Amino acid sequence: MDKLAQPFYGKMNPMVINMEKQTTQLPTTEEIKKSVDLFKTFGDATRYQILSLLYQNSRTVSEITAVMDVSQSAISHQLKTLRQAGLVIGNREGKFIKYALADEHIFEIFELVKAHIQE
Amino acid sequence: MDKLAQPFYGKMNPMVINMEKQTTQLPTTEEIKKSVDLFKTFGDATRYQILSLLYQNSRTVSEITAVMDVSQSAISHQLKTLRQAGLVIGNREGKFIKYALADEHIFEIFELVKAHIQE
Repeated sequence: MDKLAQPFYGKMNPMVINMEKQTTQLPTTEEIKKSVDLFKTFGDATRYQILSLLYQNSRTVSEITAVMDVSQSAISHQLKTLRQAGLVIGNREGKFIKYALADEHIFEIFELVKAHIQE
Repeated sequence: MDKLAQPFYGKMNPMVINMEKQTTQLPTTEEIKKSVDLFKTFGDATRYQILSLLYQNSRTVSEITAVMDVSQSAISHQLKTLRQAGLVIGNREGKFIKYALADEHIFEIFELVKAHIQE
């Protein structure tokens, strides 16, 4: 199988041939923490479903609750987590708050993951 | 803050205005499981560092071990997890196996997450 697979080698840098302990190319501790936290936030079934709904359209808590088998208080709790993690923002529209994906990166991460798992 | 934030509303579909319980737009159980598993696999500091190194270049287990403060057996274990999850592939080159990101989606997810956390 491996012999047939086509690897994706990324952006190869011909200047980086010898791997030495002192020329560490690891991400910073801060980048690792932020990225791992971002992936962990995505990696929960309830949050993933909420993000999927917001990927389609901006929605209020009630609109999200209407299509999910989860209580409104549980959804509010997860929306708070998603806002704190910077994946979702809320904008007041009259009496309601409409939730939306925070930026285009989140939208694109979604598209890529969908494309990947459908292969 | 929320009033100033610019939401990203995604691909709005003007035909989908009323949210009804029966017109569920949730992802399938299979999509949820696969996606959540993918994010969980990314969401670990050791695996994230290995993926970061493979994002730069394809590498052998020894080359990865040389720049990380983790034992070779622990890295081999995580590489197995990453291969089983479809994030990494291994190709034999002579006596060694070179590991690489499995496809361009994984590479792009990495780029997006890096862009997002640097904002």
